[in-house]
Amino acid sequence: MSNYKPLQGMEVPRYAGLATFFRLPINENPSSSEIDIGIIGVPWDGGTTNRPGARHGPREVRSASSLVRLYHPVSLKSPYDVSKVADLGDCSVNPADLKDSLSRIENFYTNINKLGIKPISIGGDHLISLPILRGIVKDKPLGMFHFDSHTDTWDSYFGGFKYTHGTPFRRAIEENLLDPKRIVMLGIRGSLYDPKDLDWAKEKGVTIITIDEFFKYGINKSMEIVKKVIGNNDAYLSFDIDGIDPTFAPGTGTPEVGGFTVRESQGILRELSNINFVGADVVEVSPPFDVNNQTSLVAANIAFEILCLMTKTSGKL
Amino acid sequence: MSNYKPLQGMEVPRYAGLATFFRLPINENPSSSEIDIGIIGVPWDGGTTNRPGARHGPREVRSASSLVRLYHPVSLKSPYDVSKVADLGDCSVNPADLKDSLSRIENFYTNINKLGIKPISIGGDHLISLPILRGIVKDKPLGMFHFDSHTDTWDSYFGGFKYTHGTPFRRAIEENLLDPKRIVMLGIRGSLYDPKDLDWAKEKGVTIITIDEFFKYGINKSMEIVKKVIGNNDAYLSFDIDGIDPTFAPGTGTPEVGGFTVRESQGILRELSNINFVGADVVEVSPPFDVNNQTSLVAANIAFEILCLMTKTSGKL
Amino acid sequence: MSNYKPLQGMEVPRYAGLATFFRLPINENPSSSEIDIGIIGVPWDGGTTNRPGARHGPREVRSASSLVRLYHPVSLKSPYDVSKVADLGDCSVNPADLKDSLSRIENFYTNINKLGIKPISIGGDHLISLPILRGIVKDKPLGMFHFDSHTDTWDSYFGGFKYTHGTPFRRAIEENLLDPKRIVMLGIRGSLYDPKDLDWAKEKGVTIITIDEFFKYGINKSMEIVKKVIGNNDAYLSFDIDGIDPTFAPGTGTPEVGGFTVRESQGILRELSNINFVGADVVEVSPPFDVNNQTSLVAANIAFEILCLMTKTSGKL
Amino acid sequence: MSNYKPLQGMEVPRYAGLATFFRLPINENPSSSEIDIGIIGVPWDGGTTNRPGARHGPREVRSASSLVRLYHPVSLKSPYDVSKVADLGDCSVNPADLKDSLSRIENFYTNINKLGIKPISIGGDHLISLPILRGIVKDKPLGMFHFDSHTDTWDSYFGGFKYTHGTPFRRAIEENLLDPKRIVMLGIRGSLYDPKDLDWAKEKGVTIITIDEFFKYGINKSMEIVKKVIGNNDAYLSFDIDGIDPTFAPGTGTPEVGGFTVRESQGILRELSNINFVGADVVEVSPPFDVNNQTSLVAANIAFEILCLMTKTSGKL
Amino acid sequence: MSNYKPLQGMEVPRYAGLATFFRLPINENPSSSEIDIGIIGVPWDGGTTNRPGARHGPREVRSASSLVRLYHPVSLKSPYDVSKVADLGDCSVNPADLKDSLSRIENFYTNINKLGIKPISIGGDHLISLPILRGIVKDKPLGMFHFDSHTDTWDSYFGGFKYTHGTPFRRAIEENLLDPKRIVMLGIRGSLYDPKDLDWAKEKGVTIITIDEFFKYGINKSMEIVKKVIGNNDAYLSFDIDGIDPTFAPGTGTPEVGGFTVRESQGILRELSNINFVGADVVEVSPPFDVNNQTSLVAANIAFEILCLMTKTSGKL
Amino acid sequence: MSNYKPLQGMEVPRYAGLATFFRLPINENPSSSEIDIGIIGVPWDGGTTNRPGARHGPREVRSASSLVRLYHPVSLKSPYDVSKVADLGDCSVNPADLKDSLSRIENFYTNINKLGIKPISIGGDHLISLPILRGIVKDKPLGMFHFDSHTDTWDSYFGGFKYTHGTPFRRAIEENLLDPKRIVMLGIRGSLYDPKDLDWAKEKGVTIITIDEFFKYGINKSMEIVKKVIGNNDAYLSFDIDGIDPTFAPGTGTPEVGGFTVRESQGILRELSNINFVGADVVEVSPPFDVNNQTSLVAANIAFEILCLMTKTSGKL
Repeated sequence: MSNYKPLQGMEVPRYAGLATFFRLPINENPSSSEIDIGIIGVPWDGGTTNRPGARHGPREVRSASSLVRLYHPVSLKSPYDVSKVADLGDCSVNPADLKDSLSRIENFYTNINKLGIKPISIGGDHLISLPILRGIVKDKPLGMFHFDSHTDTWDSYFGGFKYTHGTPFRRAIEENLLDPKRIVMLGIRGSLYDPKDLDWAKEKGVTIITIDEFFKYGINKSMEIVKKVIGNNDAYLSFDIDGIDPTFAPGTGTPEVGGFTVRESQGILRELSNINFVGADVVEVSPPFDVNNQTSLVAANIAFEILCLMTKTSGKL
Repeated sequence: MSNYKPLQGMEVPRYAGLATFFRLPINENPSSSEIDIGIIGVPWDGGTTNRPGARHGPREVRSASSLVRLYHPVSLKSPYDVSKVADLGDCSVNPADLKDSLSRIENFYTNINKLGIKPISIGGDHLISLPILRGIVKDKPLGMFHFDSHTDTWDSYFGGFKYTHGTPFRRAIEENLLDPKRIVMLGIRGSLYDPKDLDWAKEKGVTIITIDEFFKYGINKSMEIVKKVIGNNDAYLSFDIDGIDPTFAPGTGTPEVGGFTVRESQGILRELSNINFVGADVVEVSPPFDVNNQTSLVAANIAFEILCLMTKTSGKL
Repeated sequence: MSNYKPLQGMEVPRYAGLATFFRLPINENPSSSEIDIGIIGVPWDGGTTNRPGARHGPREVRSASSLVRLYHPVSLKSPYDVSKVADLGDCSVNPADLKDSLSRIENFYTNINKLGIKPISIGGDHLISLPILRGIVKDKPLGMFHFDSHTDTWDSYFGGFKYTHGTPFRRAIEENLLDPKRIVMLGIRGSLYDPKDLDWAKEKGVTIITIDEFFKYGINKSMEIVKKVIGNNDAYLSFDIDGIDPTFAPGTGTPEVGGFTVRESQGILRELSNINFVGADVVEVSPPFDVNNQTSLVAANIAFEILCLMTKTSGKL
Repeated sequence: MSNYKPLQGMEVPRYAGLATFFRLPINENPSSSEIDIGIIGVPWDGGTTNRPGARHGPREVRSASSLVRLYHPVSLKSPYDVSKVADLGDCSVNPADLKDSLSRIENFYTNINKLGIKPISIGGDHLISLPILRGIVKDKPLGMFHFDSHTDTWDSYFGGFKYTHGTPFRRAIEENLLDPKRIVMLGIRGSLYDPKDLDWAKEKGVTIITIDEFFKYGINKSMEIVKKVIGNNDAYLSFDIDGIDPTFAPGTGTPEVGGFTVRESQGILRELSNINFVGADVVEVSPPFDVNNQTSLVAANIAFEILCLMTKTSGKL
Repeated sequence: MSNYKPLQGMEVPRYAGLATFFRLPINENPSSSEIDIGIIGVPWDGGTTNRPGARHGPREVRSASSLVRLYHPVSLKSPYDVSKVADLGDCSVNPADLKDSLSRIENFYTNINKLGIKPISIGGDHLISLPILRGIVKDKPLGMFHFDSHTDTWDSYFGGFKYTHGTPFRRAIEENLLDPKRIVMLGIRGSLYDPKDLDWAKEKGVTIITIDEFFKYGINKSMEIVKKVIGNNDAYLSFDIDGIDPTFAPGTGTPEVGGFTVRESQGILRELSNINFVGADVVEVSPPFDVNNQTSLVAANIAFEILCLMTKTSGKL
Repeated sequence: MSNYKPLQGMEVPRYAGLATFFRLPINENPSSSEIDIGIIGVPWDGGTTNRPGARHGPREVRSASSLVRLYHPVSLKSPYDVSKVADLGDCSVNPADLKDSLSRIENFYTNINKLGIKPISIGGDHLISLPILRGIVKDKPLGMFHFDSHTDTWDSYFGGFKYTHGTPFRRAIEENLLDPKRIVMLGIRGSLYDPKDLDWAKEKGVTIITIDEFFKYGINKSMEIVKKVIGNNDAYLSFDIDGIDPTFAPGTGTPEVGGFTVRESQGILRELSNINFVGADVVEVSPPFDVNNQTSLVAANIAFEILCLMTKTSGKL
């Protein structure tokens, strides 16, 4: 497998051929130093407290990603010209056992990390970020750009249960996988269970920019804050599709109305080209709640923007 | 029934349990002074001249409202901390007899009014506003904030027929239930039957802010006009879901493209916290034309904003 | 709450009013000897190995059941004339913790059993049958009529995991909750993982009638076998909606084409009026995969047939 | 307009061109003796007590009917070779006024009748049959073949209201428009409001063949009864699409599971070629509840079978 | 046919009656000087390289256009007061033969052009613009306002194939049907096959305003460029529905996320009232991929804006 | 690639992993003698005269086929135990050029034939059968079992055009690829363009069993005819999904109501185990018209039955 290039739509129609991420070659058993960036499906939604279905995300995002071409529309650069990128298949999971799944995912990413591959993961629900971080954070905690409508820093659900898609970043901060002072959560919105829902994260030093604050500040000032907080050291990018308005991305389990458009989301991501992301995920795409695969198409385009960010081929007008 | 609090999503998953408005207790036979605000379904669409289905609105908005939590995201206050709020069930209607239904609805609201309960009604088509106003206006006409793409002040349809969802506010002004000089209609748009469609209302003194005017003026100036026109006396809030763009709220009978986003709609409502609303409705949600219950979810969130307005727990950044 | 009768559709339109099972009164805290048969939602799908969503079954079956009237079309008798029937609400579950959920369900049904209420449970995935049986089987194992396309007697999945919706009846037989010699599994079909998939159950003495055998034998002979095997002692009825053809009941997680029509399914159930069912469930309705709520409507009608069976008000022409 | 032939699909693709019934010429102002059979839309659902939307039936059935070709598959004869058939457009209605609509429909059909045109009407809800019969029955009552899951002979709804889609044939018998002794209702099924629901019709002499009786008797014996009861005098054919199983015809307001397949329905109709039908309707197609326009396609094919019956070009193998 | 006015919704409900464009009279055989503007369906998608279905566009846009009324909401003027407008039916096509179809379309428009009728065409895929231009450009090349997310100026596909919906404007410029120096392409966006995808057009002198450039410049400056480039001579307007964001217009074959809202699109069109458009098309509406006919409704409203532009009855606040 | 076995669902959840046919290994460049049976996608619908979309068939059938397991439910045998089966990827096509596509497909199958691989092709529209037969018929014409609602033996469309999905078998008989005396067409039904539509085929000696004849004869007698006509020599199996009732398989371009159920279709196929099929196709699955991927699931199961037939691992009770 010598050529890590997507199939070209001018030669093979885009609806044809096997559905891999971005029509890239599939490599389910990569060896050391071969691949720079691996795109990985994590078909698991066992941490979902509300509407399920994110386990079907990887398959549908793969299919929708056939519509994404090779070059970024603003920079006119392609990630495939500068990096070796492949579809690494799906991580092993157990749909009926949460703990077993956390362990399988952590092991998978530990191995990816050893091979020197930077992962872009397609979920799956947001709890997958925790075992991914456990797998790839080996020395010191990462900073994080977290795009979402929820902070996902609740402590527990249903009488003390600690592991759900509403808790991954509380656990990750507790486990020193993330440095709260280098985390920005952008787009937080929606009614709250309690007026103190955001307090724990803030007390730890997390910077929260609610969607209302974002539009009050404007994109320029908001992104200045983001870049300053995260800084130049290694960081992780976690993109919850429910940060986008549910009209644009209806296929998700916990929709919050009043969110970002896709255009705004693209504009936000394009500001982040100087951050050093060592991994990323796009989570909470739930195809059973989707409408005509729109959400999968949005997720595929967002994943392409992130791929461009990680290969420094993104662009901003 | 001593505790008028919604079921908590951290204890009972939000998709579980009986579907009442906002997971509130149901009280189909309230007695005097017990309840401050009652949320009421009016499952009737007999005044619909175009695409029907709004009779199914209450059931689906109840179901979608399970996703709304307890605290306003900007004020961090909850309506349930300051008022007793309950789901009062559905008003009695007759789906095949318009006049009988107008009478049943008026009687229901006359009783609600006697009990001192302020109603938030979930329609149903827009004609329900007329018998609701007949039931709750006892002394002097109300002012009104009317969010809609249509003025609903036509005179008659189909050869002189006076009662349809296109005529309620003409009748209400004629019957002195509303004071036209204290009415603002916001968001009016879409092609017209006649260049004089808006003239009758304007001649009566109604303030109309078309969507084009809104965006020309900007939200600040527009809302200044709204607040000045309606003033401090009692007012009614009538929210037609078709004021929102049909991409965001497709489940409605008379869609007009080019409308407000949900975020803009939330922003508009949050400006109205000083108006003294004694009743409100959210109408024209037609689930058979909805896509994945998106419109019901929007309507539930809008109803929550209105509930916060009426309990002064709304917020504006 | 003295009157356990459904709301009448000739008085309140069937789409109106709160959505309870069969428009029955809701009683979430029943006391001893008050209720004969309780209809219970079990909104949990944590045992699902394939497509999820059965957690949403109870809410949608409740809504669809508004369309079911009071009298059986063949016997012209009504269950509500001979028994006190109520909607007991939803059993408590934990969507992210399988073991906790099995324990919560078992406790709930242990209590129902103490109150002398016979349960009809609306799932939820098929694993719920296991904790239900643990809760209601106190003395000796039950017989069972099991309508399904799968035997659900696999041993384990994903490297030895014992609890999924493919294993409940293996566990129940191992735990002596069911008497395999008094079990009939009807409708088994679809491609197999292994030619020995059915062997364990057969070796334990379970009677399996595949769908091919059913049509070879004909309904009369098939049902003779069923009645003879189950006999007169107490029995359980477990109805997996995927026993019905997925065209008729698409909203399910593991569809097997080539199944029973609804009319055939009704005909099968109507033959069982002499069996002494002490409990029943209708499982695997997954609304996110449903088409226009058809599956929920089928499930509601099936649940009504079962209610008639349990109250001896069923009929056969 | 000299040529009453459908547009040919081998020349103009079937999805192209204006959507008229069977791609026939449209004639909204027919004159005397020009046309033998007129196909008429009645876009009205004001008598609907449950789920609305049948007002949209004519438009969608017109669109789906493009797929129907010219010759009957068994007889190999075409109605267009022996009769002049045209699309007469839609009857005038008032969606918000039941009485006005009944009057408009009656007037329309009185005129059709005067022109000597036999109508095939596409509804609309089942109440339209009443004013149609008022318009076309001038001398003596007609016999009727009534295909349905409901008898539609209830007396009144919602506290004495006499005109709904559940009452047309009670009114028609009371008004001496139909001769109950020459009526057969076939396919009746589904749970009942009351064990006496069918008694009034039976007492008047109507022959009811429930779906269970139909399958017990077999098609031959059942249709012998039908033909014998209706006899040779003029008769009407009323086909409620909900007589067909809702999996095959989901787009209807009052679905009853366990109904006829389309193939069975075609077989039943093909037995009726000797009856002298002077008019017919296909009602209760509700496109907002349809799935991919399947129900409209079924209705178009059923209407074609009826057209063949009325032109004696039907066939039976 | 003396009255070229749409049917009025206050007299005949908008869902009723035959579905013609804007409820206008149909005239499939127009004669000279009778009609000013003809609206024409071109039900063909044989040039589609990706997702098909645009052949179904004309029928569904006709149906959706029933919801458009007669007067422009800003100008309060109606195109029907100043011009004779009719639905001219569908152009003849051959769904299985690309060359035959190009020839049929060209012939149709050559005839329209001879009759002095200005066409507004409803596609169909974007390749139809080529034979339309061949039919209507008789003397000198036209300018063009091209609203789209793609430039449609690729050279060839699939090994040298020259005619697809990605190539029409390259062919049209090569054939001197369009003057590249008077073309503006607005809204171009989305990932690219090659960094040079836009170069050929630019080298020919085409002005491309990408969506990013549009929002950087603002609408005023952008539209100044458009008006200056196109100038006062005759021009064509080609509106690809995929220029609009796929959330607003999902029913299209090559969706590019991050596009214009409908409101922005309306605002853009309303700036063009001084350009002398001699023809226009709205293409790439693919109903099989649509959601609840939203895209057809958007297309109908866009076509109404264009009709107002061509009759100088458009308005801008 | 030494192991031609599907991925096991007890190890990797069936929704996970890459979507290949039956979860088999993919081999896009097979070499001689390696593979016995190849499953091939032909993503092309350029011959479609009515509703398109069959080009999307291969991708969705691949995805749905994940739900098919390894062993036949009646024979308890697996094709993978006796033959080497692989997914050979998609055949090259040109969506905008019919002739080029016919040539590409023929070349692909000529090569497959040279490698000694028996193909099971997943279409695509029915015209693909023609170039497939051109590719694999090298010596003498094949017999054929043709399951369909149409004979596909029309001569030409749209003024003499010879190549559409309505003409493949006329061309194949003319080209001596098929022996008409060894062809059976089963399931033919639906209204006709002309009473002579079936005459050409009959005159050539083709045996046509209409669906009405099938049910008159019964399955046993019908299949006796099939087996006798086709005999023992090499034959082809062409399965048009529209032979199945459109309620069961709605995702198809030319639906004919009143067809076979899936169970009946399975029963028919299971009778054919003694015929020597050297190739087969499953065509006309059009995902854009599908409902929840039901048709793709049916097609995957039908393809599995055919695979079992070709490997003699099918079963009949």
